Amino acid sequence: MAVYTDVSGEELAEFLRDYDIGEPLSVKGIAEGVENSNFFLHTGRGSYILTLYEKRVRIDDLPFFLRLMEHLAAAGLRCPQPVRRHDGEALGRLAGRPAAIVTFLDGLSIARPAATHCSAIGAALAALHRAGEGFPLIRPNALSIEGWQPLYALAEGRVDEVMLGLGSCLEEELEHLAAHWPAGLPGGVIHADLFPDNVLFLGDAVSGLIDFYFACTDAYAYDLAICLNAWCFEPDGSYNITKGSALIAAYVARRPLLQDEVNALPLLARGAALRFALTRLVDWLNVPPGALVRPKSPAEYVAKLRFHQRIGSVRELGLT
Amino acid sequence: MAVYTDVSGEELAEFLRDYDIGEPLSVKGIAEGVENSNFFLHTGRGSYILTLYEKRVRIDDLPFFLRLMEHLAAAGLRCPQPVRRHDGEALGRLAGRPAAIVTFLDGLSIARPAATHCSAIGAALAALHRAGEGFPLIRPNALSIEGWQPLYALAEGRVDEVMLGLGSCLEEELEHLAAHWPAGLPGGVIHADLFPDNVLFLGDAVSGLIDFYFACTDAYAYDLAICLNAWCFEPDGSYNITKGSALIAAYVARRPLLQDEVNALPLLARGAALRFALTRLVDWLNVPPGALVRPKSPAEYVAKLRFHQRIGSVRELGLT
Repeated sequence: MAVYTDVSGEELAEFLRDYDIGEPLSVKGIAEGVENSNFFLHTGRGSYILTLYEKRVRIDDLPFFLRLMEHLAAAGLRCPQPVRRHDGEALGRLAGRPAAIVTFLDGLSIARPAATHCSAIGAALAALHRAGEGFPLIRPNALSIEGWQPLYALAEGRVDEVMLGLGSCLEEELEHLAAHWPAGLPGGVIHADLFPDNVLFLGDAVSGLIDFYFACTDAYAYDLAICLNAWCFEPDGSYNITKGSALIAAYVARRPLLQDEVNALPLLARGAALRFALTRLVDWLNVPPGALVRPKSPAEYVAKLRFHQRIGSVRELGLT
Repeated sequence: MAVYTDVSGEELAEFLRDYDIGEPLSVKGIAEGVENSNFFLHTGRGSYILTLYEKRVRIDDLPFFLRLMEHLAAAGLRCPQPVRRHDGEALGRLAGRPAAIVTFLDGLSIARPAATHCSAIGAALAALHRAGEGFPLIRPNALSIEGWQPLYALAEGRVDEVMLGLGSCLEEELEHLAAHWPAGLPGGVIHADLFPDNVLFLGDAVSGLIDFYFACTDAYAYDLAICLNAWCFEPDGSYNITKGSALIAAYVARRPLLQDEVNALPLLARGAALRFALTRLVDWLNVPPGALVRPKSPAEYVAKLRFHQRIGSVRELGLT
C-alpha cells in the first residue's frame, strides 16, 4: 500500500477540466496498490478512482489495461470503467505522471473467505474469461515460466538468508517446471492477480473485480490455479478442499475445462505458487531505504508450493 | 501517511451493528494522518471517516478530541462530527484498537496557498477559537515550552548529523525561550496543527477543518503563530508579508488581539518554529526499519526559526 505522489487541489482542478465529471469535491490518497498512487475522487457527478502510474508500470502497457477494462465492462463484467476525456483519450498526465480516472465500485474485501465466497470467485473468474473473449490486444505474461529464471537470478545468492534450503528448493522447482510446463492450453485475457484484495463483495455476492494491472494473455487454467492458491488455503497453511471444490465447480459450470486443462492443473498450481513466492522473495530482499511498502513474506507461497509438490492427483485440489 | 491496521469487511460489518448508519458499502484505507489508521467509509447512509487509534495516541485523550469536535460542530464550526453508537458512546473497538466514526467533509487541500487562502485561514482560526469557548475539558499542550527540552534530549548527540551546527542553534534557542516564554496570555482550545493538510477548501472558501488530534488548551496567539509559520512562508523559505498581513488581519477582525498578545507574537512564532523543528528532527532520526512513514526534513522549520530569530518587530510579520 502506498501513495507515492501527492496531488494538490489546484493541480486536480486543472486536470479535471479535460473531463466531463464536474468540479472536484474531495480527493484522498488511498492505501491500495503497490505499483501506483491511487486516490478516491469525489466530484459533482459521483465517485471515482484516480490513478497515477508510477515508474514500475510500463507506459506502453497502459492502453492494454484501460481498453481491457472498457471491453470487460461493455461485456457486462462489473469492473472499473475508464472515464474518457473530452479529446477521447482515457490517459492524461497529472503531477508529471500518466494518470487515468476510472469509476468507483462499492464493495468490501473479504479477509476470511468461506466456501460460498470461493464459489462466487469461481463464477466471477469464468465470467471474466468469457467477457475477455474477442479482446484484440495481446500482452504476454512477463511473470510466467520464461520470467521466473531471471526473477530468481535477482535473489540468487541471498535466498538462504530468507529460509535455509530455499535456494535448492526453488532451483529444483524451476528445472522441473521448465521441463514440464504445458503448452497449447486454451487461453486469452487472464486477471493474473485475483486475490481477495482485488475482489469486492456486497454480502455474499461479488460486486466487482478490480486492479487489472497484472492482466495479460495466458492460459485460462493458470488463472484458475492462481485463484485456488489465493482463496483456498487456510491461515494455518492447509489446503481446504471444500473451498477448492466450490471454486472449481462454479468455474467449470460456466466454462468447462478440457481434459488437457484438468491434467495440467496441479502443475499450473505449482507454477502459480512459485510465481508469487519469487516476486515476494525479490521484494523481500530489495526493500529500498525509506520504503512506504512493507513487503509480504515469501514463506506463505513457499508452503503452498510444497503442498502442490506433494499432491498426487488433481482430485486433491477438489476437482471431481 | 499510513494505514497501520487492516480492517476486513467482516469485522467492519460487525462493528457497524452498534451504529445507526446503515450497511457498509465500501471501506478504503486512506493515506492521511501519521498517528492513526484512517479509512474512507461509505454506507447506506452516507460517507464517513473511520479512525483506528494506534499506539502513539493516548487513549485517555480520546474523549477530549471527540467531545471537542462535537462542541465545535454544535457551535457552528465545520469540522468532522463524531457519530455516536446505540449506547451513546462515540468510542468503540475495532481490530483490537479504539475506534471512532466521524462525518466526512468534502473539500480539497491547497498546496500553494495564496493571500486569499491565508485570509480565509485567519478567519477560520478565529472562528475555531470562538467556537471552543465554554468547552469544559482541559488538555495541557505536551508539545509546548515544557515539552521541548525532553524532546530535544531524544535527539541530543545526533543533531549535528542532520545539519552541522544545529545542536548549538537549538540549545541556545531552548535557553532563550525558557527565559522569555510569555505567561498569562488569553487562551482556550487551540488546534495546534492547522497546516494546509488539515484545512479543506471548496473554491476559495474553507469547507472544513480536520485532524484535531493535537488540539489542546493553550494561548490563542500561539495557534496564530503556528498558522503564520505553516501558511505564510514561500517554498524558497522567504516570509510573505502580504500573506502574513492577510492572515493576521482576518483573525483580528473576528478576535482582536490584546497588546500582550501582539508583543508576544514574534517570540511565539520562534517557539512554534522550534516545536515543529524538534518533532521533525526526532522523527527524522528515528525512522523504524520497515516504516510506512517518510518523515519530513527538519530543515524547513530550522530555516523558519532562523527567520524569526532575525526579525526586529512584529511589523515584520505583517501586523500593522
